Amino acid sequence: MKEIRIGLIGFGTVGKGLAQALFSQRERLIQRSGIAFTLTTVVDIAVDSLPDEFSNVTLTRDAKDIFNDPSIDIVVELIGGMEPAKSFLLEAINKGKHVVTANKALLSVHGREIFTAAALNNVEVGFEASVGGGIPVIKALKEGLVANKINYIKGIMNGTANYILTKMTDDGMAFNEVLKEAQELGFAEADPTYDVEGIDTAHKLAILMTIAFGLHVHLDDIHVEGISEIEPTDIEFAGTLGHRIKLLAISRNHGKHVEARVHPTMVPETHMLSTISGAFNAIQFNGDTVGDVLLYGQGAGMMPTGSAVAADVVDIGRNILQNSVNRVPALSYLPNNMAEPIITPMDELVCPYYFRVTALDKPGVLARITSIFGDHGISIKSMVQQEHDANEPVYIVFMTHSATEGNVKRAIREIDELDVCTSPTVKIRLLISE
Amino acid sequence: MKEIRIGLIGFGTVGKGLAQALFSQRERLIQRSGIAFTLTTVVDIAVDSLPDEFSNVTLTRDAKDIFNDPSIDIVVELIGGMEPAKSFLLEAINKGKHVVTANKALLSVHGREIFTAAALNNVEVGFEASVGGGIPVIKALKEGLVANKINYIKGIMNGTANYILTKMTDDGMAFNEVLKEAQELGFAEADPTYDVEGIDTAHKLAILMTIAFGLHVHLDDIHVEGISEIEPTDIEFAGTLGHRIKLLAISRNHGKHVEARVHPTMVPETHMLSTISGAFNAIQFNGDTVGDVLLYGQGAGMMPTGSAVAADVVDIGRNILQNSVNRVPALSYLPNNMAEPIITPMDELVCPYYFRVTALDKPGVLARITSIFGDHGISIKSMVQQEHDANEPVYIVFMTHSATEGNVKRAIREIDELDVCTSPTVKIRLLISE
Repeated sequence: MKEIRIGLIGFGTVGKGLAQALFSQRERLIQRSGIAFTLTTVVDIAVDSLPDEFSNVTLTRDAKDIFNDPSIDIVVELIGGMEPAKSFLLEAINKGKHVVTANKALLSVHGREIFTAAALNNVEVGFEASVGGGIPVIKALKEGLVANKINYIKGIMNGTANYILTKMTDDGMAFNEVLKEAQELGFAEADPTYDVEGIDTAHKLAILMTIAFGLHVHLDDIHVEGISEIEPTDIEFAGTLGHRIKLLAISRNHGKHVEARVHPTMVPETHMLSTISGAFNAIQFNGDTVGDVLLYGQGAGMMPTGSAVAADVVDIGRNILQNSVNRVPALSYLPNNMAEPIITPMDELVCPYYFRVTALDKPGVLARITSIFGDHGISIKSMVQQEHDANEPVYIVFMTHSATEGNVKRAIREIDELDVCTSPTVKIRLLISE
Repeated sequence: MKEIRIGLIGFGTVGKGLAQALFSQRERLIQRSGIAFTLTTVVDIAVDSLPDEFSNVTLTRDAKDIFNDPSIDIVVELIGGMEPAKSFLLEAINKGKHVVTANKALLSVHGREIFTAAALNNVEVGFEASVGGGIPVIKALKEGLVANKINYIKGIMNGTANYILTKMTDDGMAFNEVLKEAQELGFAEADPTYDVEGIDTAHKLAILMTIAFGLHVHLDDIHVEGISEIEPTDIEFAGTLGHRIKLLAISRNHGKHVEARVHPTMVPETHMLSTISGAFNAIQFNGDTVGDVLLYGQGAGMMPTGSAVAADVVDIGRNILQNSVNRVPALSYLPNNMAEPIITPMDELVCPYYFRVTALDKPGVLARITSIFGDHGISIKSMVQQEHDANEPVYIVFMTHSATEGNVKRAIREIDELDVCTSPTVKIRLLISE
């Protein structure tokens, strides 16, 4: 029987998950693939010993022990971050080893260099675990939906942010309160910036866009806004208006240019993405052949992510066995057919909007505000005004028909300059229904 | 550039969808795979001419024109039903051609013979389109979730039945009323038996179980109940009790034996499957590594199903190009590792139940009924009694904790023999939450 030997760099949460998955599924994988997948070496500078079940696995602090071991076929990088992860991956690739990684931050910034090196060395790069944890979303895009022009991607791709928004929505709690609780419970990191500011979601969107559209999308191409400024008031108004606020990654394919944005979004309660709660992820594609497809599951965690890494390892193992390396191009399009993205400028984005204007309740206020909207071609769909004390500023909430972001910015600037407006207007984009 | 030539048998809805997909996605598929996929021949005895865009395609009434054409690599069977579909597939396989089919009825009954012939001839059998239309569910099970013992499958796999139940739920209409409307709108077939009686769902469950568990599951292994007996009253009570009635396929893997059942099921409103409305499908897996994963999309239709067939064609084309045929075993386990299923007898099924007892409202009735439940070890979780006229029989609705089907049958038999019970008790199984 063929044996495929695996070197693992990083024995943290996901690394342990992969080790456990390879160990507990060993017989099943033999039955399914005819291949014995053996974890031979673990590199981790912070680990002193491996659990008993891995007594046959070599533990080392030096990644060279993997790179220089000619018996190792696949190197799995699960340390995350830029360096030394990037150097490790490149060194493995240059040594002719296939690599698997869950490192979305790295791929969304240095992916091009890594995939180019892999193509030169004719090795595979598996990255199913970089998006959506255990959900086989990369494989779905690259293979299951291969006969589709992808029209859009919409998704909840960060469990921490979704957990926080869900708690804020269900329990009426403030952002900071929920974040603190989530940190105490271990659901949020000590430094939650990547999760709550949308950066992690943007990493993932860059990867999905790259393979969905065949474009070299970089993290910097993506407009990113997080959820730390979301106020309970807006979550409440959203509910009143039949919507929930979710941190969405959205990309729409306009042919000549593509949208690329991550921001809090008002999602109609009737839309499936509004029903995704807690730490779960859900990613929706629209393809010109298949229509809408949505994939849902645990977007993070030791075993779910381990499941995705293991699937990549098996996929590569089958290709080694069959001598069919790069049978499916790493980025779904052949390297020569990849193109440069042209990103829709945010000012040219067209979508419906939610505005919360804070104003003194004086005669004529509403007329002044709505005439500014009218001047900028923004058509109001509905309006809600809070009950209030006569002397307090009042919230006036608007939902618009589709409007252009540039016009919206100009209108808000004018509204916020009105003497009756006492606080900056809050703007939240709505999910386009289609 | 490599060309892969395709012969298509059956130019009905899905056949047209495949032809269109191959035509409109030709350039994209070249960019992604380096292969030109060419539809060369269409066999259909009821078609006189092909649309203009297929002017290069040969139309014939004789399937032999495909089997005897050595230039054709892949034969796609989209006529459905048992014969001549089965003979066509076997003849193609015996001629050394790879085959793709969407024929769930055939595979769930004669799959073993077909897959055995394919293994003997070292050709591939693609059947992604047989379950869940365009949703890449087969690929997810065979590859994306390869490092998982599948614990259960739960799904809505028939759009017609789900459309009818959704309409009954939303509009309070009776089954026959909705069916008639659906037939007029073209959403239901003239003979809707397969769809509404759960048979089509059972075909699909047999296929999913086969690849999820590595067991040769046959249609006859599956307990099937349809939705034609579902009454608006029960849908209403379900709503009152926070549930919706859905036609589910359910299989739970108990290790030594597996459940295999299709029946109307009470799904809690908080469960994602309860939110799937209209003609959509959703299929949920639980894997021991990945946890819960759910895939959602259009389970039928010309283009969605065409998307899945095209994905199979591309997968096989890549294997032809790379000389890696049967790189992934057709049934996900290597032929020698497939086993015989042992199906959980329905009498040994354990799940919670909904009962609607129809009884005269006489003193002591409730005590008599509940004591029968108690005698059979059935523990009541909640009870609802309708308001009613004193002289009319009354509905008494029970939701139970988990109980054994055999005991439930015996209890219902005794209850229905009570002189105060005026109609047979209605029983609907609940989805086990886990």
